[in-house]
Parts: sequence; C-alpha cells; structure tokens
Amino acid sequence: MTPFDVSVRFFIQLAVVLAACRVVGRVARRLGQPQVVAEMLTGVLLGPSVLGLFEATRPFQHWLFPPESKVVFLSVSQVGLALYMFLVGVEFRSDLFLGRARATALVSGAGMVVPFLLGAGLAPLLIPLKGLFFAPSVQPWEAMLFLGASMCITAFPMLARIIVERGLTGTALGALALAAGALDDAAAWCILAVVLASFQDDPWIAIRAIGGGILYATTVLTLGRRLLRGLGSSAHPDGTLPSPVLAGVLMLVMLGSWFTDAIGIYAVFGAFILGCAIPRGRLAEALTRQVEPFVTVFLLPTFFTYSGLNTRLDLVNTPQLWLIALVVLLAACLGKLVACWAAARMNGEDNPTALAVGTLMNARGLMELIILNIGLDRRLITPQLFSIMVIMAVVTTLMATPLFEWVYRGKSRAAV
Amino acid sequence: MTPFDVSVRFFIQLAVVLAACRVVGRVARRLGQPQVVAEMLTGVLLGPSVLGLFEATRPFQHWLFPPESKVVFLSVSQVGLALYMFLVGVEFRSDLFLGRARATALVSGAGMVVPFLLGAGLAPLLIPLKGLFFAPSVQPWEAMLFLGASMCITAFPMLARIIVERGLTGTALGALALAAGALDDAAAWCILAVVLASFQDDPWIAIRAIGGGILYATTVLTLGRRLLRGLGSSAHPDGTLPSPVLAGVLMLVMLGSWFTDAIGIYAVFGAFILGCAIPRGRLAEALTRQVEPFVTVFLLPTFFTYSGLNTRLDLVNTPQLWLIALVVLLAACLGKLVACWAAARMNGEDNPTALAVGTLMNARGLMELIILNIGLDRRLITPQLFSIMVIMAVVTTLMATPLFEWVYRGKSRAAV
Repeated sequence: MTPFDVSVRFFIQLAVVLAACRVVGRVARRLGQPQVVAEMLTGVLLGPSVLGLFEATRPFQHWLFPPESKVVFLSVSQVGLALYMFLVGVEFRSDLFLGRARATALVSGAGMVVPFLLGAGLAPLLIPLKGLFFAPSVQPWEAMLFLGASMCITAFPMLARIIVERGLTGTALGALALAAGALDDAAAWCILAVVLASFQDDPWIAIRAIGGGILYATTVLTLGRRLLRGLGSSAHPDGTLPSPVLAGVLMLVMLGSWFTDAIGIYAVFGAFILGCAIPRGRLAEALTRQVEPFVTVFLLPTFFTYSGLNTRLDLVNTPQLWLIALVVLLAACLGKLVACWAAARMNGEDNPTALAVGTLMNARGLMELIILNIGLDRRLITPQLFSIMVIMAVVTTLMATPLFEWVYRGKSRAAV
Repeated sequence: MTPFDVSVRFFIQLAVVLAACRVVGRVARRLGQPQVVAEMLTGVLLGPSVLGLFEATRPFQHWLFPPESKVVFLSVSQVGLALYMFLVGVEFRSDLFLGRARATALVSGAGMVVPFLLGAGLAPLLIPLKGLFFAPSVQPWEAMLFLGASMCITAFPMLARIIVERGLTGTALGALALAAGALDDAAAWCILAVVLASFQDDPWIAIRAIGGGILYATTVLTLGRRLLRGLGSSAHPDGTLPSPVLAGVLMLVMLGSWFTDAIGIYAVFGAFILGCAIPRGRLAEALTRQVEPFVTVFLLPTFFTYSGLNTRLDLVNTPQLWLIALVVLLAACLGKLVACWAAARMNGEDNPTALAVGTLMNARGLMELIILNIGLDRRLITPQLFSIMVIMAVVTTLMATPLFEWVYRGKSRAAV
C-alpha cells in the first residue's frame, strides 16, 4: 500500500469507528456502561478477537485495518488523547485538590504501595514456571518490579472521562480521584522506567524519566503558569479565541506531550499538567468550548478503539491460566479498590465517597494495555501473562462504572 | 522506528509545524500573502529544499521528518483538508450560485477548455525530447491529455480558503469562484482518470471516476439533502450540538471523503458536496462554530505544509529547462487567468470582479502537486517535467493573492 492508499483507508476506518462507537454506545448505556467502555468494546469487536475471528468477516477486518495503517491510527489516537487530557487539566480544580492534599496523599499512597506489594509478591510464584510468563533472561527482581508496576496502574484517562461525563470535575470527589489517579499513574510509569533501565542496563532511562518528569511538572506549574497568565483574558468578547492564541496553546500541548513521551513518562501527563497551568477564566472556557466537542467526538474514540483493537482474548486457553487470571484479578482489586477505600475511610471520607474513589482507581483501562505492550515488545513478559493481565484490565474496567453508579446513587451530587 | 516511536515524533512535528506556520504567517502578511501561502512556504522551508539543503540543518530535518512518518502526516492532512472542505461546503451559498448559473458555466467552461487546449498543444513540442519529459512508453495522446489536465487544475482548497479568509463565502463573487473552481477541478480529475485508464489499459478507472462522481453528487444533493433536513434544528438552545449528531455528521464526512477518494476523484469533492447538502440554519452554524477553529488552526496547516514538504525546487537546473518552465507558466496564465477573465467579462461582470475570479482560478496550489505526484508515481512524467510544473504551480499560487488584493481593493466589498 502506498501512503496515499493508507490515507484513503484511514477515512473509512474513521467512518466505521465513529459509527460503531455510537451503536455500541447505545447498547452499553442500557447495560449501565459509559461511552468510554463502549469505545473500548468497539475496538474489541472490530479487532482480531471478534470481527477477525470468523471466516466470513475476517477478509473485511484485514481490509479495514491493514498493518500499514496501524501507525496512522496510533499516532492520531495519541494526539486525540493528549488533547483530551489537556482539557481535563484545564477543568481540573487545583483549589479543591489542595484542600484535600492529605486525603490525596493517603489514597494515592495506598493505591500505589498495596497493589505494588501484592504484584511484586505474586511474581515469585510465577517465575518458577520457567518461560511461561517471563522471559528466561528476566531477573527475579525485575519480574517483581514489572508485575508490581502493572498492578499499580490506574486508568487515568478513563477515570478522567468518567468524571467529566458525570460532570464531577469541579467536585471534591472529582478532584481527589483525578489527583490520586494522576499521581499513581505517574508513579507506575516511573517504576516501569526503572524496570526498563535495569533490563537494558542503562540507568539513564530511569534518571531521565523521573528527573525529567519532576523538572517538567515544576517548570510548567510555576514558570509556565506565570507566563501563561498573560493569555488569561485573550478571548474575543464573543467567547472565541484569536487564531494565534489557539495555535500557540495547541502548539504547547504538542510540545509538552512530546517531551513527556520522549523522556519515557507518556504524553498524557505532559498534556494534563499543561492544562492545569492554563489560567482559569475566559481562556479556559474558550478552549473547552472550541476544542472539546471535536476532540471528544472525533479524535478520542480512535484511542479507546485502538486499545481494543490490540486486545487478543484467545490466548488464555487452559484451566491453569484461567485460575492464575482469577488470582491476579483478586489481587488487583484487593490492592486498589480495597486499599484506596480503606485509605479514604481512614481520612474521614464517608463510605460512598471512599467506595467511589476506590472503584474509579481500580479501573486499569488501557494504561495497563500500554504498559503491558511495552513489556511484551521488550520481551519482558510472554503473550500468556500479557493476556492474563489484559483480562484483569478488562474486568476491572468493566466493573468500574456499574459499581460507581451503585455506590454513588445513594449519595446526592449536591452533598459531595 | 516502531509505530510508537513514530507517534512520539508526530507530536514534535505538529509542534514545529504549528509554530513555524505562525512565524512565517506573520512575515507573509507583511508581504501581502495569506496564511495559506505561509503554510505552503513553511513546508518548503521545513522540507528538503531549505532545511534539508544545508549540511548543518540536514540531520535535524531528517530527524524531524523521517520517511516512516510520511504516511501519518499525509493521512492526518487529508482528514484535515476533507473536514475543511466540508465546512466550506456548509458555508457555500447555492442560492447565489444558482442565480449566476450562466456565469459559472461560462467561467468554468473557459477555465477548462482553454488551458486544456494549451496544455495539450504544448505536449507535442515536448514529446520529441525523448524521455526527458515523458516516459518512453507514454502514447502522444496520453501525454496531451495529461498535460492538458494538469493545466486545467484550479487550487480549489486554496481558492476556498482565500474566499473564507476574506469573508467572501456569502457573496456573489465567492459563490461564482467556488462553483467554477469546484467544477474545473472535478473535470481535471475526470480527465486524469481517463489518462490513467488508458495508461493502465483499464476503462473501469474512467467509468468509475466519472460515473461514480456524478452518482455521488446527485444522490447527496437530492436524497442526502432531504434526509439531512431532519437534523436542521437539532442544535441545543445554547448553540452546541448533541454528541450523536456531531458524530453522525463527521462520520458522513469521512464516508463521503472515502468514497470519492476510492473512485478516483479525490476526497475534497466528497466532503465539499456533503457540506453543500447540510441544511442551513442552526445545524450549519453549530458545525461551523464547533469544528472550524480547531480544524483550521490545528489540522489544516498539516495539509498545506505537507505539499510544501514534498516540493523539490532543485531539479530545474539548465537554461533550457528554465525556458520551458517560462513557456509553461505563460501558457498556464493565458489559459486560466485570461480565459476566465474574458469569459466573466463576456457575461457582463465588471472588470474587477472578472479579474478577481480569473486570478483565483489561476492559482494551482497543491491540487496541481497531487495530480503531478500521481503522474510521477505512475511513471507518466519525469522528475524534470514534474519540477517545471511545480514551479508553474508555485508561481501562479504566489501571484494569486497580491493580484487579487490589487484588483479587489478598487472595489468596495459591499458593492460585490
């Protein structure tokens, strides 16, 4: 396929993805699942697990998603996700977060330490099954770190989207969950950097990720925030932004996303942190109004669909593997859901809020898939362990919204 | 480079392109050139002709635009262009066009027939220079058709953008130029399909393009328009669109773009014609408000920059080639600018309007580059002829806006 052929196919891919996401979204809503889960399911349906599984539909699946187009779909989905996370940052209420700094620290700490210990503790049980779950060249402590890190993951983009969809961005619950989710996720990426640094015998990988991440966050939130303040009132009276301002802000989002990607801690943080540094007021409102509808409706579904497209559920195929998958799932829920709930309760949150936070933190979504794909690409883990972890990610993601709705329904929104 | 590496690089490409387009845009405005020309120049500056020319900057150029990322940049630029042409269609005033159907027919007819005859007449002079301009396997009449078609080209997207930037979409001049430009461009694509059909010995290429194009346009403008009418008032009272409506419309844009691309007459027509079928009123206003800023500022520059990135001005390097380039350029201007001006005058338009239309029709922009790239890819023409035609395209594009401003300044906007 020539580049032009790929670009033509990309149009029909977008058309099919947009249409399928809407149809699946309607069905999902009846089952109590949000649009974001519908988009992940759409990916699974359009991917090798369903559309590519049957003799009759496989040629269409291969025609629709040829391997040459993978890079286009991935790149566009990353841009869409970065822009979305930037907008989440723009709506993030840091005042609410700062008022609950202790709760955030406790919840994110618990949601980091407990699942990490459980994951790291599971690794020694899996290592003896030589080569079945980890590559033979992997050191035991590397296996422990990787499994620990992949248990720590919180689906920060998904958590953010559920909070935005429910209109909770400006509430204390929303601020607490967003901040704790961001911290946990950033921590998991730093642990991953340590694993990769050790696995590739290059300490710079870890130094760059952790040092660069801290440098980026502090620079953007202090110096960046001050420099951006001048743009705060630059919207036209009719609420639209002058083109140079819009272009400048979007340019910064791309730059921040690139930087955090390049140092190894993923574009979503660069974009989210930049969003937090945007001055509140007319600029923030205009950005949300002019960018959010298109990004959410058009670009973002490609990201959630892409992760579903890369999921292969057919690799977990023996009772032993299913048993291990169950153990991993229980450990994952114990580590995140229960630990975050307990931490929030200890800090004096009421039971529904604590449960809601725990539920949201528990969803792994596709951040898990990204970290797992890195492990698979670098040959740290085998396709079997990959698929087990994918099942854990899918189940924790699917249970998030119904559980959230259930605990949250008892609590009126005004009371949060 | 892995797909993930390409996606990371894509962020920095977008950041550099956005920043460079703004800086070049400021300079260009002082020279009387519009933003769209600035974006094409940005591509030339960031491409092999400038940034890639010097020893010192070449490694950076190669790092910034690795060959693997070409397909991503192209695909995104096509989507951006299709969305933009859709929005141009949404703002197109078909009532103004219908009131001037005779003028449109005359201008587009003259702008089609005269340059085609001049181009076709030039071909026999170039064919004897065996292998220098046309591949030896090319039949004389194929060479004539191809050169005729590539003279016929009007930069429909660029013409549209100048008209939108000047706020002329809703004027008689705007409607006349848009309609005539669209017709000429569509005709050029149909001629190209005939050339390719003959060159590849497959009449279906031509039948599919011409028949499919007529079928698409009539279906969308009759049945499609009727079906879309129901959505006309589906905007919320605050002027925003419900997500399903926005998703549905964008899905249709992708579908129409894919269809017209797949049959061989380029996505811009599918998107533009669909835009014309969108009912005027709240839906159209909401679409413009919610989609246009992001598409124009973020996605569209990738398209104009991409075409500049692919321009190589260093291939025209002998006096003979420069002489031929000059002859081609004169023929091109005579065929488009003079012929369209004459046709408009004959139809009773005043001199400034006739000249303005002729000037806009004369710009070849990157539609020319697309058709030339196809000729080069399929080995119809040589890199020498390719570069000569590129020079013609660049010069006719650069002269469009200053000339337009000059003839147009004499005429107050209200009077058009």
